[in-house]
Amino acid sequence: MALLLEFSMYPLGKGESVSPYVARSLKIVDASRLPYKLHAMGTVLEGEWDECFRVVKKCFQEMKKDCSRVEVVLKVDYRKGRNGALQSKVPS
Amino acid sequence: MALLLEFSMYPLGKGESVSPYVARSLKIVDASRLPYKLHAMGTVLEGEWDECFRVVKKCFQEMKKDCSRVEVVLKVDYRKGRNGALQSKVPS
Amino acid sequence: MALLLEFSMYPLGKGESVSPYVARSLKIVDASRLPYKLHAMGTVLEGEWDECFRVVKKCFQEMKKDCSRVEVVLKVDYRKGRNGALQSKVPS
Amino acid sequence: MALLLEFSMYPLGKGESVSPYVARSLKIVDASRLPYKLHAMGTVLEGEWDECFRVVKKCFQEMKKDCSRVEVVLKVDYRKGRNGALQSKVPS
Repeated sequence: MALLLEFSMYPLGKGESVSPYVARSLKIVDASRLPYKLHAMGTVLEGEWDECFRVVKKCFQEMKKDCSRVEVVLKVDYRKGRNGALQSKVPS
Repeated sequence: MALLLEFSMYPLGKGESVSPYVARSLKIVDASRLPYKLHAMGTVLEGEWDECFRVVKKCFQEMKKDCSRVEVVLKVDYRKGRNGALQSKVPS
Repeated sequence: MALLLEFSMYPLGKGESVSPYVARSLKIVDASRLPYKLHAMGTVLEGEWDECFRVVKKCFQEMKKDCSRVEVVLKVDYRKGRNGALQSKVPS
Repeated sequence: MALLLEFSMYPLGKGESVSPYVARSLKIVDASRLPYKLHAMGTVLEGEWDECFRVVKKCFQEMKKDCSRVEVVLKVDYRKGRNGALQSKVPS
């Protein structure tokens, strides 16, 4: 679980308020059983590369069902041997 | 306060552990008196454009004093008339 | 000119095709007289911190005139003493 | 090929100049046979979701062989039915 992945994903062309689409992503994140935290501008997951990207891909597949333009912004922070950074990183 | 700004900033060439440099940024953020939230991969500020960017610039100026390479990643989410999104956005 | 700044900026709620709005940003970038390059997903500027951010702010002010939700993604790469990186960085 | 993916990836703790590590990524990108463009702050790929992310993962796996901290920044722009955007998007 050496990897933190932060992402945000939203459609263009669905109006200004995209929260119904974001809510579907959050359900997928929540069902993934990976540790995660939401904040006002995105979601941070902790896990292995494939686990994390599988979740992001599921969100994308769900969104493109009814959204013909989708934007994703994503950051990865990998640190060998680190564990539990989602919980511990802020206080340090 | 219609604007949310998320940023992360770190030096290259200062080793793997950049937390002493990040800690200096957090002091600046905290002293800014803007509403903010820390998460495992960045900081989210709420304020007007100039207020938020003034804080980011201060962090940058502090970091480049002793770091000769600095990376910044930044996102802005502006919504006319919105207020208090830093607190309210996650539950919705 | 030690700083490279990459950004993309687009409205939500203005349909799928946002190119008319992006075109207005490009005019502002072009009028700035800073060195810049466009690519398929953004614009890279080279300049001092204030110069670069002044351009981004102008683009934002123009966009929010008729867009009530605006997203910006921005990266900065600063390297002390570097010059002309916009031209030279790709070949190296 | 409805998807554009832009990414940059670099190690922390390997000094200020990370170009040898970036060069290894570029070899992997070039060997992928996906259309791509380099710019001063990243690489833009065009392809399907899995194709593009396979390339990014290969770069990551190569980098973490000898880098124990790695940062990735990534953006996706998906537009249904679009084709050849890597070439055509800048002029429009």
